[in-house]
Amino acid sequence: MTGNQNKVEAITSMEQDFTKWYTDICLKAELVDYTAVKGCVVLRPYGYAIWENITKILDGMFKATGHENVAMPLLIPESLLQKEKDHVKGFAPEVAWVTRGGLEPLEEPMCIRPTSETLFCEHFAHVLQSWRDLPMKYNQWCSVVRWEKTTRPFLRSREFWWQEGHTIHETPAEAVAETEQMLGIYADFAEKSLMIPVTKGKKTESEKFAGAEATYAVEAMMHDGKALQAGTSHYFGDGFSRAFGVTFTGRDNTLQYPCQTSWGVSTRLVGAIIMTHGDNNGLVLPPAVAPIQVVIVPIAQHKEGVLEKAAELKARIAKFARVKLDDSDNSAGWKFAQYEMKGVPLRLEIGPKDIEKDQCVLVRRDNGEKTFVALSELETVIPKMLEELANGLYEKAKVNLERRTLRCATMEEIMAHGDENLFVHASWCGDEACEDAMKEKAGLSSRCIPFEQNMPSDKCIVCGKPAKCEVIWGKAY
Amino acid sequence: MTGNQNKVEAITSMEQDFTKWYTDICLKAELVDYTAVKGCVVLRPYGYAIWENITKILDGMFKATGHENVAMPLLIPESLLQKEKDHVKGFAPEVAWVTRGGLEPLEEPMCIRPTSETLFCEHFAHVLQSWRDLPMKYNQWCSVVRWEKTTRPFLRSREFWWQEGHTIHETPAEAVAETEQMLGIYADFAEKSLMIPVTKGKKTESEKFAGAEATYAVEAMMHDGKALQAGTSHYFGDGFSRAFGVTFTGRDNTLQYPCQTSWGVSTRLVGAIIMTHGDNNGLVLPPAVAPIQVVIVPIAQHKEGVLEKAAELKARIAKFARVKLDDSDNSAGWKFAQYEMKGVPLRLEIGPKDIEKDQCVLVRRDNGEKTFVALSELETVIPKMLEELANGLYEKAKVNLERRTLRCATMEEIMAHGDENLFVHASWCGDEACEDAMKEKAGLSSRCIPFEQNMPSDKCIVCGKPAKCEVIWGKAY
Repeated sequence: MTGNQNKVEAITSMEQDFTKWYTDICLKAELVDYTAVKGCVVLRPYGYAIWENITKILDGMFKATGHENVAMPLLIPESLLQKEKDHVKGFAPEVAWVTRGGLEPLEEPMCIRPTSETLFCEHFAHVLQSWRDLPMKYNQWCSVVRWEKTTRPFLRSREFWWQEGHTIHETPAEAVAETEQMLGIYADFAEKSLMIPVTKGKKTESEKFAGAEATYAVEAMMHDGKALQAGTSHYFGDGFSRAFGVTFTGRDNTLQYPCQTSWGVSTRLVGAIIMTHGDNNGLVLPPAVAPIQVVIVPIAQHKEGVLEKAAELKARIAKFARVKLDDSDNSAGWKFAQYEMKGVPLRLEIGPKDIEKDQCVLVRRDNGEKTFVALSELETVIPKMLEELANGLYEKAKVNLERRTLRCATMEEIMAHGDENLFVHASWCGDEACEDAMKEKAGLSSRCIPFEQNMPSDKCIVCGKPAKCEVIWGKAY
Repeated sequence: MTGNQNKVEAITSMEQDFTKWYTDICLKAELVDYTAVKGCVVLRPYGYAIWENITKILDGMFKATGHENVAMPLLIPESLLQKEKDHVKGFAPEVAWVTRGGLEPLEEPMCIRPTSETLFCEHFAHVLQSWRDLPMKYNQWCSVVRWEKTTRPFLRSREFWWQEGHTIHETPAEAVAETEQMLGIYADFAEKSLMIPVTKGKKTESEKFAGAEATYAVEAMMHDGKALQAGTSHYFGDGFSRAFGVTFTGRDNTLQYPCQTSWGVSTRLVGAIIMTHGDNNGLVLPPAVAPIQVVIVPIAQHKEGVLEKAAELKARIAKFARVKLDDSDNSAGWKFAQYEMKGVPLRLEIGPKDIEKDQCVLVRRDNGEKTFVALSELETVIPKMLEELANGLYEKAKVNLERRTLRCATMEEIMAHGDENLFVHASWCGDEACEDAMKEKAGLSSRCIPFEQNMPSDKCIVCGKPAKCEVIWGKAY
């Protein structure tokens, strides 16, 4: 793949320019390539492999909770998009329109799906008959298109890859339970596989999904203190069902509307990994989704027996971890830098002296710690070290989150922190005008109303009226 | 999912109306649903699960031969599509054009990819530098759009799901070897997983892919004697490389153009499965891709101990096969018909009398054969029976292929068979005019020039001039 000694250049430091640092990693760790279409990137093999590992774990969690995969069409006729009025209002300004098919103009324009609620509703209306058919719990893996003005790889792009779950249920309670279950799966996945601490909460009215009764989200803090929404789960009530005529014969033989949910995570998660765990040497990957968990770098590989021993270790490690042996003719130093850039969790060095002593060196990507390990112990040490590294990533992210979190009762306390990016926990009266004022005065938007409530004050931090709930405020990606 | 006793209706018999029979299976086996957009279908859970099993097996074969997955954008700017003249000529008349993004007209129209050669070339031009970077062997799983006029589920649709492999190589020989390797993988997969006999061959000039130097294909015969192209593999030489400026520094330090290939299979394979193995009771699935390999139908399930025993067997079988227990309150007869329609390879019946005798009944979907099996032997009998069934499907398809294959030296021999759909092996001079004449006179097009050549005559069957090769002629889907 490489063979070019110039490729591992230093990247911009995150302290100097976080945005540039981020883009440098996307390109130099070979995650993406730009294309002629603004906001549409190529996911290169290494970037795609991270996403593929994410999809495999999540797909297993979805199936284990009774969801089935389907594939919906890419195109939505204009009249179908328009059936639910809040939904079309939210999405129409940002979709791409197909107006010609082959050499002829289309009778009706069609948009490329920005999300597929309308398509699922059309299908549910065809196939749903009786309460016995419920619940229907579907998911699809696909890409969607939203015609964004400002774009950045993984974070905001005109095309992105995601999964969208769409379910219908007999009762509101079952649909709400589904929404919560999926949010829980997202939180578990973020914390246990991506090692990113998240907060579960509900979005305010102004931040919820176009057409939803309620939107729930898991919010994560990036290294620079900004918030990234790592997954959302929507409860629709029967709004879409009514708009699309989705009905079923209930247990009492009357015609009823099912209650609906949708939920999704996207390639944004790759952006979250970069900005949570990355450092000035490049990407740092949580082992669960790392395409390569252990890279073997032979030292003095031209010396007799080194490559043979390296290959032998590779075969052993391949039985329990994703391992790569780099026996290319690049220098060891180049290889060190290359796999640090790519965020490979563990590097295994093996040279003539190590072989003599029946040992090797294991180097952790997150903290650079070197450990001499007896070759006979690799089967126990490597999995243990990968787990410790994963936990270390989580702890480090947690420390960052806590360091940049404030509980405030007055606007003055917030303003005292100037431009610093923070998660501010503050009480809110529930009025949208106060959300607007917070944005204007402090540059902060409501991230979520956390499930675990603990109001810092009984008064709204903005207007002083009685508070209804605690809100986490922040700057968002 | 079901619960509706009316769903298992008889389907049109294939002898009466093969086309209607096919569509009946697509709908009644719950593989697809139609949508408001002509030619764009929903892959329902059962249909998608078959495709998902196909993708898993093939993806493993691709990775084992050193291919890496990537994701390319959905949109191709008009100017990019136009860079290779044969390619644009072939595809421009059948693509869907995006002309508006959000509320504004686009500066340049973009088409939804009908295939992604142009996008891969743009990317290769960015990342390829030296001969050390070669080969690059990429694949992507996605959907593509071609604005077809006549459409049928799986066989010809405006959107379809597929994989497209794209590779670049240092030398023509390596690229040709890649093309052949992938054709071999397709043939193996068709014969060993889908149990469909195929012929490997080369397409004539008039049938090759727009922009290719050579197109290779695996051709299968459907139950009605028509041909279905089950996979293609293209050799491009350096035509695309030159058109897109893809270059590398060679071993001799000169700038060179890599040689390129692409290859793909699509959801057409599901159509091939239906039309090769299906019968008048519905779908018949080869075990390797069947979402359910064994369905357990409890008999007299209200009687004590029946459901418990059925659940116990399910747990045992789940260890080595994909198994479903249908304990719904539908009648056993309804269940029999339902899972026959869905093509589940084996049905296991278990009732009070069986339990007394420590046995169950296994029924093969392909031939209806019933076997009493001691419960202690399920672990050995079921895998064996699945394998026998798979081989049986292959043999049956092979018999159909042989029965409908002719070797002819004269047009009269062909014409004597009237409207019957056949694979006709006949010699050809290599002249396109004779291909046209064959289509006009006998309604047959050239399917391929088989790799294993055995000319029925040394003269062209159409014009009588010296023949260059044996061609398989047929009517194609």
